[in-house]
Amino acid sequence: MTRSTLISKIVEKKSFLCVGLDTDLTKVPKHLLDTEDPIFAFNKAIIDATHRYAVAYKPNLAFYEASGIKGLQALKKTMDYLKKFEVFTIADAKRGDIGNTSQQYATAFLSPEGDFNFDAITVAPYMGADSVTPFFAYPEKWVILLALTSNKGAFDFQFLEDKNGQKLFEHVLETSKQWGNSENMMYVIGATQADALVEIRKRIPDHFLLVPGVGAQGGSLQDVCKYGMTKECGLLINASRSILYASNGTDFAEKSEEEARKLQEEMADALNTYCN
Amino acid sequence: MTRSTLISKIVEKKSFLCVGLDTDLTKVPKHLLDTEDPIFAFNKAIIDATHRYAVAYKPNLAFYEASGIKGLQALKKTMDYLKKFEVFTIADAKRGDIGNTSQQYATAFLSPEGDFNFDAITVAPYMGADSVTPFFAYPEKWVILLALTSNKGAFDFQFLEDKNGQKLFEHVLETSKQWGNSENMMYVIGATQADALVEIRKRIPDHFLLVPGVGAQGGSLQDVCKYGMTKECGLLINASRSILYASNGTDFAEKSEEEARKLQEEMADALNTYCN
Repeated sequence: MTRSTLISKIVEKKSFLCVGLDTDLTKVPKHLLDTEDPIFAFNKAIIDATHRYAVAYKPNLAFYEASGIKGLQALKKTMDYLKKFEVFTIADAKRGDIGNTSQQYATAFLSPEGDFNFDAITVAPYMGADSVTPFFAYPEKWVILLALTSNKGAFDFQFLEDKNGQKLFEHVLETSKQWGNSENMMYVIGATQADALVEIRKRIPDHFLLVPGVGAQGGSLQDVCKYGMTKECGLLINASRSILYASNGTDFAEKSEEEARKLQEEMADALNTYCN
Repeated sequence: MTRSTLISKIVEKKSFLCVGLDTDLTKVPKHLLDTEDPIFAFNKAIIDATHRYAVAYKPNLAFYEASGIKGLQALKKTMDYLKKFEVFTIADAKRGDIGNTSQQYATAFLSPEGDFNFDAITVAPYMGADSVTPFFAYPEKWVILLALTSNKGAFDFQFLEDKNGQKLFEHVLETSKQWGNSENMMYVIGATQADALVEIRKRIPDHFLLVPGVGAQGGSLQDVCKYGMTKECGLLINASRSILYASNGTDFAEKSEEEARKLQEEMADALNTYCN
């Protein structure tokens, strides 16, 4: 999906919500566990309930790999099902390896001929340029590079300062923005780090940011919009657990719809306030 | 597998060779492409030819994921087949995510009930402690943390220095060695960085190192042994392409056996020279 198509979907739906499909069989409603493919049954219900309010879906690979090959079959069915809604799809995979190996990961997740055919993949920066650039091989596909994550462990290395006071995640932004551009690259910036967004926007004024950490992890949607939004929106805000597990009864889909709608309404307000 | 079992296998086979099963369908001999499962057919032949000379096998997940679900089925068959040789198995997956998600990856790759049941997994450090520690949940299983990689991109971030001159990969070593110990944690140090091994051994004198980059990437086995070996060996040296693709004719397995044997003989000499 191109940047301009993504922006037009945001304008049309008045939403920049990304639903994180972190489908955990220990948390899905019990009555689904007797179906033939509980992961897909749950995902389908969540997608049906939320697609009017979301522009993007982000399955995290870990939750599918945890069920082995069956889990990946459920992911493939989910991806096939998502096609009809014309949403932006993100493989939250946090991959990255030496050049010839990252190329294989790009084939796995982004190739139009592959089992999954995602629009984008999250990539870890530790191994540098040749671990990231192979993901640019497919047109209209995106790299979403980890910069500043939402978890406690972000403080272990991402804030390390060089002798000029530049932090590691700032190095990652400055170096990696030479590898791609705002048409094929986004960055992960955790919502729990909203106060860093002002400085981050000085370094990358145009790139879209994928922002996890609103909801279960405690980040503020308002703060992220205030400090991170651009005239073209520039944000995809992800919510996973707060939408998926809004209820664990037979009303789980209705409750997830309510949560998604609430977030979409807040997002419509933010778009009115900050965007053209 | 425990550390002491691993060491006893090294002593028994006079080898610390790890064979990297980076099985690329564009490189395997043409005659295998007509078989029902070319990936597994290739892997089985390579394992049969090399297991006398190797203590460990390391499938890189990217090469299986590139073939989608079929590729992962071939990986499962490969893992089932490897069980009979009692070798140390490494999922070269370079995973790492927020705590509850890394837990899912640990289930996927290390759980004895899972499809794969590896002994170890490679993990990327960027997201810090809570992205790594969930992998310690399974007894006798190992985290192999990226520290200093063998690729050109290693120079983008891994050598960044703080105001005291400590490099990022040194921070990773110092911080992460508090999370585990030499019984459940190893580090990836590229063979192309052999000159850094003397300083690295001052920080982590006992940990095993997984060393890629010998062979196709140009690292020197002798230098790695000279600077990185401990009294208990402390090394697993990986070779992938130089063994797998030693020939692309019908003699591919024999040629791979020759390459593995040559490396094993060099390793036997190094064990005689540097170890108890």
